[in-house]
Amino acid sequence: MIKKVDHIGIAVRSLEEALPFYTEILGLEVQAIEEVESERVKVAFIKIGETKLELLEPTGPDSSIALHIEKRGEGIHHVALGVDSIDERIKEMQEKGIQMLQDKAKSGAGGALVAFMHPKSTGRVLYEFCEKRDKGE
Amino acid sequence: MIKKVDHIGIAVRSLEEALPFYTEILGLEVQAIEEVESERVKVAFIKIGETKLELLEPTGPDSSIALHIEKRGEGIHHVALGVDSIDERIKEMQEKGIQMLQDKAKSGAGGALVAFMHPKSTGRVLYEFCEKRDKGE
Repeated sequence: MIKKVDHIGIAVRSLEEALPFYTEILGLEVQAIEEVESERVKVAFIKIGETKLELLEPTGPDSSIALHIEKRGEGIHHVALGVDSIDERIKEMQEKGIQMLQDKAKSGAGGALVAFMHPKSTGRVLYEFCEKRDKGE
Repeated sequence: MIKKVDHIGIAVRSLEEALPFYTEILGLEVQAIEEVESERVKVAFIKIGETKLELLEPTGPDSSIALHIEKRGEGIHHVALGVDSIDERIKEMQEKGIQMLQDKAKSGAGGALVAFMHPKSTGRVLYEFCEKRDKGE
């Protein structure tokens, strides 16, 4: 059911300030930067093997990433697990007693369909299910 | 230089309480459970694609995982990046101004050599370098 760790989401105050560590120090490459208006975030994708780091900069004070930084500081925000048939997976989790933050998958960064599990159902880890529409990736 | 995300470390109070979410709910498999006496942790490895989740239960109150749970609660603890020639990587990071928590790699779980970067050098993410002695893995 779970194919891989699709990405690790990392909350940063500023992509401009955060990226040099990844590019100049670690020698990694930024694949793409995009803005996800619905989530009020600007996202930079950094590929490492089959997974990615997803750096998330809030673009407004009402962004859930802005709230996370305010409460917990910068740092790791979530872990996304790559799945197929995400709406079936959501239903399966709900039947198993897991509280999902979405009843149906929503559009996320990188053209993916995503849904989050409530951390109280998972041992305080914010896990995301993530289904790529472009299966080639 | 960085080959993959080797694993994601997750602090838990109790493996016994944490594991059913991974095995019964998510359908993942525990590869191995081992105790790392020097770190005062009991570790469960759960393979997902080319990476792993590493669940860390403290075995004593002086364990850094116990301190993390006390301060921040359960949840994601670190991200380990798979590298070769770890001692050269440590030196390279130090030359680039990154504060490493170890000057030389130490033995970690799963027979790996590991070294951590200080979160203040990385945007508040605890990154580990991790070199496998068994390159077949």
